[in-house]
Amino acid sequence: MVKPYVVGIDIGGTNTVMGIVDARGSIIGSDSIKTQKYLIIEEYVDELCKHLTALINEVGGVDKIKGIGVGAPNGNFFNGTIEFAPNLPWKGVIHLAKMISERIGVPVSLTNDANAAAIGEMTYGAARGMKDFIMITLGTGVGSGIVANGQLIYGHDSFAGELGHVIVRRSNGRLCGCGRTGCLEAYTSATGVARTAREFLEIRKEDSELRRIPIQEITSKDVFDAAVKGDKLASEIFEFTGNILGEAFADFVAFSRPEAIILFGGLARSGDMIMKPIRESMERNLLAIYKNKIKLLFSELKESDAAVLGASALGWEAK
Amino acid sequence: MVKPYVVGIDIGGTNTVMGIVDARGSIIGSDSIKTQKYLIIEEYVDELCKHLTALINEVGGVDKIKGIGVGAPNGNFFNGTIEFAPNLPWKGVIHLAKMISERIGVPVSLTNDANAAAIGEMTYGAARGMKDFIMITLGTGVGSGIVANGQLIYGHDSFAGELGHVIVRRSNGRLCGCGRTGCLEAYTSATGVARTAREFLEIRKEDSELRRIPIQEITSKDVFDAAVKGDKLASEIFEFTGNILGEAFADFVAFSRPEAIILFGGLARSGDMIMKPIRESMERNLLAIYKNKIKLLFSELKESDAAVLGASALGWEAK
Repeated sequence: MVKPYVVGIDIGGTNTVMGIVDARGSIIGSDSIKTQKYLIIEEYVDELCKHLTALINEVGGVDKIKGIGVGAPNGNFFNGTIEFAPNLPWKGVIHLAKMISERIGVPVSLTNDANAAAIGEMTYGAARGMKDFIMITLGTGVGSGIVANGQLIYGHDSFAGELGHVIVRRSNGRLCGCGRTGCLEAYTSATGVARTAREFLEIRKEDSELRRIPIQEITSKDVFDAAVKGDKLASEIFEFTGNILGEAFADFVAFSRPEAIILFGGLARSGDMIMKPIRESMERNLLAIYKNKIKLLFSELKESDAAVLGASALGWEAK
Repeated sequence: MVKPYVVGIDIGGTNTVMGIVDARGSIIGSDSIKTQKYLIIEEYVDELCKHLTALINEVGGVDKIKGIGVGAPNGNFFNGTIEFAPNLPWKGVIHLAKMISERIGVPVSLTNDANAAAIGEMTYGAARGMKDFIMITLGTGVGSGIVANGQLIYGHDSFAGELGHVIVRRSNGRLCGCGRTGCLEAYTSATGVARTAREFLEIRKEDSELRRIPIQEITSKDVFDAAVKGDKLASEIFEFTGNILGEAFADFVAFSRPEAIILFGGLARSGDMIMKPIRESMERNLLAIYKNKIKLLFSELKESDAAVLGASALGWEAK
C-alpha cells in the first residue's frame, strides 16, 4: 500500500509541534501541545498521541503514514531515547521513540534537533543533492548536523556533531553553559552576541543606538536592528561574531571538506550582516587547497516549518 | 576465479615501496624503487610496473590479484590522481591510477597516505570492527584519516581530513609549512617537537641532556632519548606536545565522536611518554558527555609494513 505521508514532531522546551508532511515537503496538517505542562512522561506521550491520532485520521489513518520522525534536545538516534535533556521536564533516559511507536503503531526515529535540521535541509531544502555539508544552527545555543558521504555522522554513540562546543578561544575564553571556557557557542549564539554587545558597550566610549536600551536587556535582535540603521558599534559586533564563526568554519572544512556550510536559526536571519564577515574570515583562515571552494548558504526551509520538516524527514527512513 | 591477493604501493618522497598482501594482512612479497630517480612520470611508472610485474608473476600472475591500492601524498581518491605534491618529482596533476591500471590490467585505487593508513588499520590493525575512528599520523608532518559510519570521509573533493592544519594557537602561533600560523602540525610533528626543544632550551636556564647536542641539530628522537633517561626538560617538551594534541583531540571528538583515536608514526613510538600527557589533556578538555569514553590507541601495524598494508587495503575495493 502506498504510504504518502510522514509525521514530524519537534520537541522544544516550551512547545511540542507536530505536522503531517508529504513527499514534496508540504505540511498538510499540524498541531501543538505545551511541553512544560506534562511533568510525567506517560501523560505527555498520551496527550501527544491523542493529538497525533486526530491529525493522522484527518489524512486517512495510520495506513497512510510511512513513519514518524522526532527531533529533540539530547536525542539519541541509535536508541530512540532522550538522554538527560536539561531543558525538558523529564529526567534521565526517556525511551520516547518506543513509547510513541507502541501507541500509534508506526515506526518512529528520533534524533537531536540540529541533526533533524540537517536531514530536513538534505530532503527538502538547500542541501538537496549534496552528499557533504555541515548545518550550523545559530539560536539560543549553537548546534550542528554533519553529513558526509550522504549520511549523517552520528559517531559511536549518536552524540557526534557538537560543533558549538569546539574551543575557539584557548586563553581567557568566555564561560560556556557546558562548564568549560572558550566554546564557539559562548560567542556566536544569540546570547553570545548579546554578551558581546554588553562587553563592547562597557569597554568602548562612542555613542550607539544600543546605549538607549538597558544594558542587561539587550538581545541579538536589538544588535541587528541597530546595525541595519547604520549603527557602527552594532556592525562591529556582527564583524566580531562573524570573524569567530569564520575561523571555526575554516577548521571544520579541514575536517570533512563539505560542499557547503548551511546556516539556520535566529542569527541567520541577519543575512549579509553576518554572512559577509563570516565569509571573509573563513576565506582568510582556510588552508590554500580549500580557498574559494566552500559554499556558504542559508537554510531554504521556512523557519516556522523547519523543525517539523526536519524531524519528518527522518520518518521516511524509520524502521 | 578466486583472487587471493592485493598489491599495496606506498609512494614517498625518497622511496616507493610495493608489496603483495593476502587477506590476513601478511606481506608475501615486496620490492622498492627510488622515487627521486625518475623525473619523468612515464619512466617512473614503467620502472614501477616492471618491478610489480615481476612480483606478481612470483605469486601466480595477474589473475591472482584482486586490485592495487596506492598511498601517495596529495592523492585524490575520486580521480585517482596525485595533485601538486610538493615532495614528489612530478608537477601538476598526475593520473597515476590510470597509468598503472593500463599497464598491469588490474583495477587501481589511490588515496593519500594518512587515509591509506586509516583503511589499513581498519582492515588489518587496531581499528578492526570499528565504524568510527580517527587515525592521526605523527611524522614529519601531521596527517589524518577519518572514518565515520564505517566509511572514510573524503569530503566533496577527496581532500577532507587535514587535521594537521586545524588552528591550535590563534595568537602568536608558529608559522606552519602551509603558510598560515598556529597549525597543529607546527607543534606536534617531529619537526614541531624539535622546534619546541630549541625554544625551551633558549628560554629556560636549567641543565638538560639536550644541551650537549648542537641546538640546530636536535631531533624529536633526541628529545625522546633524553626523556627516557629522566631528563626533566625533555619530559616537559613531551607534556607540552601532548597537551596541545589533547586539546585538539577534544575538538575532533566534538566533530565525529569516534570510538577511538589511533596514533601512528615516529612520535607514536614514544609510547606513554606522549600518550599520558595526550590522554590527560584530552580528558581535561572534553565536553562532559564524552569524558572517559574515547579510546586512545597506538597503531597495531608494524611500522615498516604499515604504509604498504594501508595502501593494499584499498586494493580489495578497487574497481
